Amino acid sequence: MKFNKVVIFGVGLIGGSFALALRRANAAGEVVGFGRSPATLELARQLGIIDRIGRDVSAEVKDADLVLLATPVGQMGELMARIAPNLCPHALVTDGGSTKGDVVAAAYANMGGRVAQFIPAHPIAGAELSGAAAARADLYVGKKVVLTPLPENSADSVARVRRAWELCGAVVSELTAKQHDEVFAAVSHLPHLLSFALVHDLAQRDNKEQLLSFAASGFRDFTRIAASSPEMWRDICMANRDALLDELGSYMQELETIHEALACGDAEKLQEIFSLAREVRGNWTQQ
Amino acid sequence: MKFNKVVIFGVGLIGGSFALALRRANAAGEVVGFGRSPATLELARQLGIIDRIGRDVSAEVKDADLVLLATPVGQMGELMARIAPNLCPHALVTDGGSTKGDVVAAAYANMGGRVAQFIPAHPIAGAELSGAAAARADLYVGKKVVLTPLPENSADSVARVRRAWELCGAVVSELTAKQHDEVFAAVSHLPHLLSFALVHDLAQRDNKEQLLSFAASGFRDFTRIAASSPEMWRDICMANRDALLDELGSYMQELETIHEALACGDAEKLQEIFSLAREVRGNWTQQ
Repeated sequence: MKFNKVVIFGVGLIGGSFALALRRANAAGEVVGFGRSPATLELARQLGIIDRIGRDVSAEVKDADLVLLATPVGQMGELMARIAPNLCPHALVTDGGSTKGDVVAAAYANMGGRVAQFIPAHPIAGAELSGAAAARADLYVGKKVVLTPLPENSADSVARVRRAWELCGAVVSELTAKQHDEVFAAVSHLPHLLSFALVHDLAQRDNKEQLLSFAASGFRDFTRIAASSPEMWRDICMANRDALLDELGSYMQELETIHEALACGDAEKLQEIFSLAREVRGNWTQQ
Repeated sequence: MKFNKVVIFGVGLIGGSFALALRRANAAGEVVGFGRSPATLELARQLGIIDRIGRDVSAEVKDADLVLLATPVGQMGELMARIAPNLCPHALVTDGGSTKGDVVAAAYANMGGRVAQFIPAHPIAGAELSGAAAARADLYVGKKVVLTPLPENSADSVARVRRAWELCGAVVSELTAKQHDEVFAAVSHLPHLLSFALVHDLAQRDNKEQLLSFAASGFRDFTRIAASSPEMWRDICMANRDALLDELGSYMQELETIHEALACGDAEKLQEIFSLAREVRGNWTQQ
């Protein structure tokens, strides 16, 4: 499978790595990039991520075979509205957003009759780094990509977008957008929120320097994700607000239970909680 | 400085590494080990951690220069009562417990007039591994050890115990037991509790297999400490209950604030919290 023309909106870690990976698989003809920062686009061109910097969205999209939206999720709706009227009937659009309910809603609101050509995707590739300079052809190798197909998508369209991500080396699975957002609220968005919360709590103390000077490897790992982008996580939290509120509520209940056990000196209850957690965490291996 | 006879109670990671490190520094003459498990003691002897397996606590302690209590904290009070009457006036006792208020209370309750010879210590050496087989001569190199001296300790006794830990390669500092327990409630005990809580919360779901199958590197790091020993962390939580309840209460308040911001759609507040956390976490480096 080869896409003769690929258009990438946002040539940072996610978009740039997608382009490099498709090129490496010999699956991309010309790659054209769009983005907000001329400097980033020029860097992407110099790094061989894209062949050309796009100037005119409508014109470039007209003969595109594959379009990737790898901008912040908040900018996707406007982009969808601009590209939808210009898409060829065979063209496919996918994205790299971390939340799916909001992206799907934006697609329905902005793509009109072209919504069947949009196959939403969430590539799960850790992103401590960002920007075109961090893009790598092997970023997606062995990583999970979740597709959340729409009822309007044809089986063939879904299969071709699946294949594109597989050519990047990804392991592709499918969920509904709702399932996706619930799953990631639990295993990703909530942990990020909790990690930010711990550091924020300590950051407000008069003795924060002393506290941090005694923090060790447990703290280091627990708070690694608190060094993530505040803007990106603000957007993810807002976009997945309902599912995240459910998860946060459930976790606060869990802490109430633990607080009570601790306050009552119920050592057995604590051990029971810790033991189940250890068993489940010990048996878990990242896939 | 050389300790002609060192007696170690508990020849696992902490006690075994202390013995190996003192030997490597040529600071230990004979090393005698006690412990609950004959198999562990025999292994420690075979690994060269100890010279001999002790049989009679009273007899072995009589001519000891340095005694390390590296058993679970809950067993230390009974041990202190057995060794105190037999200690030479020049002998020093230190420990490897993760909490200090309870160890200090046990010392006052069980060591009588010998309490001045006990200089409490907390070596901060990550312990995913345990047991004699995990002991290493370099475990403490560059690691922090916190002493929480008692008013009864002479300056010379504190200096000699400090030197013993320094000979193991540790960076030694001093806090009061109360300060110690407050600091570690915040930067170690609370994060462990929160990590156990998250995994326990997910472990009770019907779809836990699905959830865990999509968990990635953020989850992996956040929950690494949830694979810690349930018994050890039950004991630490119970021993440091008051300080930990304060920290847990403060954290639950923090979550209330975040819950409210999220429920009200206050994106600015979320970004403010995340930004401060990121700044503080980004500037922190493990010392």
